[in-house]
Amino acid sequence: MEKVKQAIQDDYAEDYSYCYGCGRLNQDGLHLRTGWEGEHTVTIYEPRPEHTAIPGFVYGGVIASLIDCHGTGSASLALHRKNGHEPGDRVEPPRFVTGSLQVNFLKPTPQGVPLKAIGKVEEIHPKKWRVVTEVFAGEECVVAGEVIAVVMPKTFVQE
Amino acid sequence: MEKVKQAIQDDYAEDYSYCYGCGRLNQDGLHLRTGWEGEHTVTIYEPRPEHTAIPGFVYGGVIASLIDCHGTGSASLALHRKNGHEPGDRVEPPRFVTGSLQVNFLKPTPQGVPLKAIGKVEEIHPKKWRVVTEVFAGEECVVAGEVIAVVMPKTFVQE
Repeated sequence: MEKVKQAIQDDYAEDYSYCYGCGRLNQDGLHLRTGWEGEHTVTIYEPRPEHTAIPGFVYGGVIASLIDCHGTGSASLALHRKNGHEPGDRVEPPRFVTGSLQVNFLKPTPQGVPLKAIGKVEEIHPKKWRVVTEVFAGEECVVAGEVIAVVMPKTFVQE
Repeated sequence: MEKVKQAIQDDYAEDYSYCYGCGRLNQDGLHLRTGWEGEHTVTIYEPRPEHTAIPGFVYGGVIASLIDCHGTGSASLALHRKNGHEPGDRVEPPRFVTGSLQVNFLKPTPQGVPLKAIGKVEEIHPKKWRVVTEVFAGEECVVAGEVIAVVMPKTFVQE
């Protein structure tokens, strides 16, 4: 399976690394990882056998999760780059939360295939970024999504 | 915890009961259950400890899953009622798939509290229903969502 080499989630601060979708420290989570591929962002994930809608097809909530964390990760990558940094250069990246999530299920998504989310990131405000995503199963675009990601307020983390 | 007594998912055909979100036969799934409360539909779910965004707050992908299955379940309840049936009367209800899903995260959602999704269902075409949902943590509305649910094509199930 194709793999993201330098993922932004590998550099998140520890406190921000327990996300069920993309936290490297969440033992039960999906461990979604997002990196650059040219000017696009990518996240690759093969859903587990239990992530079924009806047998043979992937559950929409897992695809929504993929688009969600791909969105916040992509926004983090983009703002990090704007600030002069890339994943792997040992600078803590900005952490985003999801303001809104839109998912359009274009075709049934087959199980047993890695899914590749490919995103375009656009700044709409210094603290608010839009990530437009297409999810591919093989050559076929099966789902389209959009996330509005917002820089996480410092007050979000509980002391 | 408040509980839905008569859930539409209890009556889904076996083939349609392996959904990760709402299938009673998916051993690893969330087992979401949706029923009537007056003219509204409700689904009640307390996320697991691992369903965290950052510690103390619920992961958005799980909330999206709640809204997703609450949406298809609500549409099934409504079309079933239109056809003269209620959950529990031993008639197989119609099964819906999600055409699109919109989630607006209004406030951080606290962990350790049951979440209650409350939906309004509207027919926009005999095979296409809109479900507008608000998710409450206690008294507070934390998330708003909308699902366009479509009657599952018969060809969807693999032989």
